[in-house]
Amino acid sequence: MEYLSIWIMKTKVAVILSGCGVYDGAEIQESVLTLLALEKAGAEVSCLAPDITQRQVIDHSSGDELEEEDRNVMVEAARISRGKILPLDNVKADDFDAFIYVGGFGVAKNLSSYAFDGANYDVDPAVIDLIQATHLAGKPQGFMCIAPILAARALGEQHVKLTIGNDATTVTAIEAKGAHHVDCSVDSIVVDQTNRVVTTPAYMLAQSITEAELGINQLVEAVLNMRL
Amino acid sequence: MEYLSIWIMKTKVAVILSGCGVYDGAEIQESVLTLLALEKAGAEVSCLAPDITQRQVIDHSSGDELEEEDRNVMVEAARISRGKILPLDNVKADDFDAFIYVGGFGVAKNLSSYAFDGANYDVDPAVIDLIQATHLAGKPQGFMCIAPILAARALGEQHVKLTIGNDATTVTAIEAKGAHHVDCSVDSIVVDQTNRVVTTPAYMLAQSITEAELGINQLVEAVLNMRL
Repeated sequence: MEYLSIWIMKTKVAVILSGCGVYDGAEIQESVLTLLALEKAGAEVSCLAPDITQRQVIDHSSGDELEEEDRNVMVEAARISRGKILPLDNVKADDFDAFIYVGGFGVAKNLSSYAFDGANYDVDPAVIDLIQATHLAGKPQGFMCIAPILAARALGEQHVKLTIGNDATTVTAIEAKGAHHVDCSVDSIVVDQTNRVVTTPAYMLAQSITEAELGINQLVEAVLNMRL
Repeated sequence: MEYLSIWIMKTKVAVILSGCGVYDGAEIQESVLTLLALEKAGAEVSCLAPDITQRQVIDHSSGDELEEEDRNVMVEAARISRGKILPLDNVKADDFDAFIYVGGFGVAKNLSSYAFDGANYDVDPAVIDLIQATHLAGKPQGFMCIAPILAARALGEQHVKLTIGNDATTVTAIEAKGAHHVDCSVDSIVVDQTNRVVTTPAYMLAQSITEAELGINQLVEAVLNMRL
């Protein structure tokens, strides 16, 4: 008599955070909506963030910069994930089946220099390496809100098709990197099947958490479907 | 010819936060799930937090206390609400139709002394006043996770019926205040119709964000239904 063993392997998804809070880190609502949608879809989720100092700390009640404060991107991101966080530098494309990059000014301040350099922005080399390695491995990647600027820099030579909503200044900056921008509403996504990249505007356009949820749920579904 | 004007008044709900991060502030996932459920139900939501210094700042990646850091409860809570936050001291029971208190160690460290004093804990006088005034006004209140310890202190004389899940130590502490504890699973709620108080264990028991969502969605629905 023989036994048939069935192993159900959960899809392993990495969610990349850039701190904790829309004005200097990861957008918290986008982050939680992403974790919720992934877990509902049965994915096994890990949160990643770079172990680096934040470029700024912003008082979110006033908008003022707290110049005397220093905070670490990974340490703050762990607030969103209830303590469990992996340093981005230690992670390889092989470690996960898919990668989703959440938005927030942390993307423009900590993962890239976009908030300070505009169209001349560059991206953290570790982030570029991870996006390019994931692309080479043929694995799906999702980018929401302002995070598509990372894909534009890393996959510009592939003329990656993506959206950040419709902000003209940002469109110009990412098209200068070689990316192809597509205007998109908050309740939709843009899918680049060739490069296996999914993007949605989220809080680049959303006026509320339920609006943000519309695109994020679709992005998560599309990324997980690409995996199959 | 006459016209009939129909005014649709949204239910105004205050969500009380105690910082930003499970180990020293408001539990972020519970907070966002609450905002999401309220907005989906059509409520008009405002976030409140006391304008006071946090009792501790915890490195969420290591669990260590960062003794040299000072953070403000309201300023940090504004990260969750994308900047919009009201100081709890300025709010009266008349200002809202319902109040929901989110969990996290911030409840036990910033809104009360439970984390330090155990069964001898007390609660911030402004929080006690707000809960008692809301009770007197006959308005519904929801408390999730560890937040029912606040209701136990403020409404102990009314023998408020509530749950914090099934943690024996906490049950003893809140029953010493006069409250009546009911064991409850993560996917359910306890409703005290007389005192108009709804409670759910959330991350006192939840092992995942989808488990937390089960009880939180029911709590939000029950609080909004009580309003009618």
